[in-house]
Amino acid sequence: MKLTILGCYSATPRHDTHPTAQVLEVAGHIFLIDCGEGTQVQLRRKKIRFSRIKHVFISHLHGDHYYGLVGLIGTFQLLGREAPLHIHGPKGLKDIILLQLKLGKSYTSYALHFHELETREPVLLFEDEKVTVMTIPLDHRIYTNGFLFREKPGLRKLTIDAIREANIDQAYFKKLQHGFDVVNEEGTLIKNESVTTGPPKPKSYAYCSDTAYFPQLVAQIKHATVLYHEATFLSKHEDLAQKTKHTTAKQAAEIAKQAEVGQLILGHYSTRYTDLGLFKEEAEVIFRSVLLAEDGKEFAF
Amino acid sequence: MKLTILGCYSATPRHDTHPTAQVLEVAGHIFLIDCGEGTQVQLRRKKIRFSRIKHVFISHLHGDHYYGLVGLIGTFQLLGREAPLHIHGPKGLKDIILLQLKLGKSYTSYALHFHELETREPVLLFEDEKVTVMTIPLDHRIYTNGFLFREKPGLRKLTIDAIREANIDQAYFKKLQHGFDVVNEEGTLIKNESVTTGPPKPKSYAYCSDTAYFPQLVAQIKHATVLYHEATFLSKHEDLAQKTKHTTAKQAAEIAKQAEVGQLILGHYSTRYTDLGLFKEEAEVIFRSVLLAEDGKEFAF
Repeated sequence: MKLTILGCYSATPRHDTHPTAQVLEVAGHIFLIDCGEGTQVQLRRKKIRFSRIKHVFISHLHGDHYYGLVGLIGTFQLLGREAPLHIHGPKGLKDIILLQLKLGKSYTSYALHFHELETREPVLLFEDEKVTVMTIPLDHRIYTNGFLFREKPGLRKLTIDAIREANIDQAYFKKLQHGFDVVNEEGTLIKNESVTTGPPKPKSYAYCSDTAYFPQLVAQIKHATVLYHEATFLSKHEDLAQKTKHTTAKQAAEIAKQAEVGQLILGHYSTRYTDLGLFKEEAEVIFRSVLLAEDGKEFAF
Repeated sequence: MKLTILGCYSATPRHDTHPTAQVLEVAGHIFLIDCGEGTQVQLRRKKIRFSRIKHVFISHLHGDHYYGLVGLIGTFQLLGREAPLHIHGPKGLKDIILLQLKLGKSYTSYALHFHELETREPVLLFEDEKVTVMTIPLDHRIYTNGFLFREKPGLRKLTIDAIREANIDQAYFKKLQHGFDVVNEEGTLIKNESVTTGPPKPKSYAYCSDTAYFPQLVAQIKHATVLYHEATFLSKHEDLAQKTKHTTAKQAAEIAKQAEVGQLILGHYSTRYTDLGLFKEEAEVIFRSVLLAEDGKEFAF
């Protein structure tokens, strides 16, 4: 998986701080996660091909997470896009977008599919043979979902020498790749593990923004490879975090620790802070492996 | 008057080209004219104090002219604005903004006043003792207005020596400033021009974007000090201009010539062109005084 941070600051866009948007590349997909104002410019800066974005996931309807979407839809149109675009987000998003297109007489010639969300249970948004995307219900001032991207287990790898020796017909290779035991030409049962090696462990990415400290989400993201968790405030502003239903760096680290994730990435910083190092310091007291999101930064895992 | 171009390109925002927005400073006001995506960042770059913007004028509901407005409204709120904001624009704009604020539960604590437009006749949008703002009906694919900003004539200046000599009582000074003749202490009629000098000629600024070539607007902008006229295309793409109801540089110059304006500023360039000098060259064949808008550029007049 490759994660590109297009913007990781809360609230107002500035010259050098962009509101939330990120791109996750996994299994041939380019998923756009949130789309604050100016996202299309950030996509261009990172040279991400617009036509490869087929799915957009919007966490909630605060402007810093979606005000860039309608402009992106318009730009796709101007660029002659033909591929359908799937937009997953809270109920109401469709009305917002279509009202603006209608009043601008700016209908798209490509298909726009809205998948609107209102349930507070995790739901499956996308699935193909390689990956699933589910919502992670969060606890914010308005209805909000995070998103959990999970690779499916890959195929087991055939150990060619062992297979020849065991005298297994080619017709059984697919079965072996899927982990089943097979019978060889002599009628003997061959244990799968004796002629294959396991696929690499499937990776997963959990995106949790925006949310108050919400331990209920831990079960769903347990053992995720990477967790991006909002940390709008430092602990010294915990009162503000509580009031605005955001998280402190320390609390984000608590979630990472409880969920035993591989790696924590912090983001969604309030623009009041100039030294992001303090977020890392605060979180590292609780959790061993903390990285800081920065606009334009890429993470491969 | 001082005009600051925040963005002067059509269609899609890019790293180095911003969609339409400009600020006109006149008679103590800071008027924001159009508000494409990213306008709030451009305002910060130009160090324009957000709190001084009390009126926003939106020409039409194509995204490159207003997608930045809802974000700006949200930022005003985050910054603790208290002053009311007046938004002048086509019918429908209020629904768009309020739907987004409602779904984000992001109501403003300052008053938002929408002044929605649907008439195709010029209407007065704002007036105080020093300035008026009127719509300029334009001809585009959707309902569109330009805006005409006009200083009112100032007060005449008293010639102190002449007034003393004419023996005029102080009680009449205001009358003199307003151009009236007065009677002196001896009962003699004193002609205004003999004891005052005229105020400087009032200035005016006409903003015309977006529009097809539309000579009907000439009468309304006659003798404007400065005309900003869209020139999306060069003449070699006149077919495109016609099809999309935009103007070529040559046609914009025709309007300037017919209206006998003092100065023409071109803008709203299609991003297909890399050499803006060609716009100036093309327009200067028709009209003597042509300037090119550029993002961030300021014009004083």
